[in-house]
Amino acid sequence: MRYHRIPDETIRRLPVYLRGLLSSAEQGHERISSKDLAEFLGVNSWQVRKDFSYFGGFGTRGVGYEIDKLAQQIKKILNLDNVKKAALVGVGNLGSAVLAYPGFKMFGLEIAAAFDISPKKVGKKINNVKIEDASKLQTLRRREIKLAIISVPRDAAQKTADSLIKAGVKGILNFSPCYISVPKKVKVITIDIAMDLARLPYYIPAG
Amino acid sequence: MRYHRIPDETIRRLPVYLRGLLSSAEQGHERISSKDLAEFLGVNSWQVRKDFSYFGGFGTRGVGYEIDKLAQQIKKILNLDNVKKAALVGVGNLGSAVLAYPGFKMFGLEIAAAFDISPKKVGKKINNVKIEDASKLQTLRRREIKLAIISVPRDAAQKTADSLIKAGVKGILNFSPCYISVPKKVKVITIDIAMDLARLPYYIPAG
Repeated sequence: MRYHRIPDETIRRLPVYLRGLLSSAEQGHERISSKDLAEFLGVNSWQVRKDFSYFGGFGTRGVGYEIDKLAQQIKKILNLDNVKKAALVGVGNLGSAVLAYPGFKMFGLEIAAAFDISPKKVGKKINNVKIEDASKLQTLRRREIKLAIISVPRDAAQKTADSLIKAGVKGILNFSPCYISVPKKVKVITIDIAMDLARLPYYIPAG
Repeated sequence: MRYHRIPDETIRRLPVYLRGLLSSAEQGHERISSKDLAEFLGVNSWQVRKDFSYFGGFGTRGVGYEIDKLAQQIKKILNLDNVKKAALVGVGNLGSAVLAYPGFKMFGLEIAAAFDISPKKVGKKINNVKIEDASKLQTLRRREIKLAIISVPRDAAQKTADSLIKAGVKGILNFSPCYISVPKKVKVITIDIAMDLARLPYYIPAG
């Protein structure tokens, strides 16, 4: 089941809520109010309620949300209700950090393959993932891996994306500092760490 | 000058618009319509117009926005109209990638200091920034560095944040996969790369 007409901005926040709910469940809680969830995450509670209203809020006034039920619902909406495998291309500093990152499992995500062009890196293992030669990208189709993370130098990003799409990849998380052009049926999310840092000074009074 | 009552979500998008405007200016353009800017960035044009309306839209119907003027205005709002220095703590894989990242300059941001606890790393240079011993964090106060990036292991994140705040840091970009507790006057933005990947499957039809 897919839920339509949910704004992208709400979709962007759903993993934040999901992480908050799963952390809260880990701490032994069964219910949580929108106010507590919002406080825990440092967001506005009206925003939480508004976002949840898009898929029919499940909270009961004065009782709050059933954490497990809500987490399952969000996973379903995000299409994360079964494990999703992703491939990583480019095992430099950033790629190595992504491979070693422990936070994917919580969301039902798994980095199941890694590729690099350097013969020095091919064959090595990081976090139990063996680095393969980048010429083997086309194997992703039969391995049914439809998500990919690109962390190659800027010059190689578009070519890498083209190869991934040829191999059946439908969703790309792009860490290379450039725009990638893709067919309409492919979704790209580009991460620019400078943009996150660029938001901070707004909150800091000049002095 | 500070602009009040601009929603956090709009502030989050302003660097995205700024990057789009600066790229467009680089390509020789002087004016851009909200529609073209939105298309270039892959967002909705009504969202662009709504966001710009918070600080009094500068576009003229049929003519578009003056790129330079709008970029200056956004820089002013974001408090990026003079160069902002940031310190990085934790020069592992992720920290090294951040130090080598070329995208900060565009926003008037500069990573001006880097710290690590490893004697093997202290003294080395990455991207012309010399890595200093983490025991020297308190020098940030007299160097007037008020922004910091944390890329240390999870266990060390809270202690690092405490030291940074003691040294006068007011804004923290946190890459460690954990929540950091800080006084109200300090702003923390936590980045979880798993959350970005977690949004992708939503856009991918099951198959």
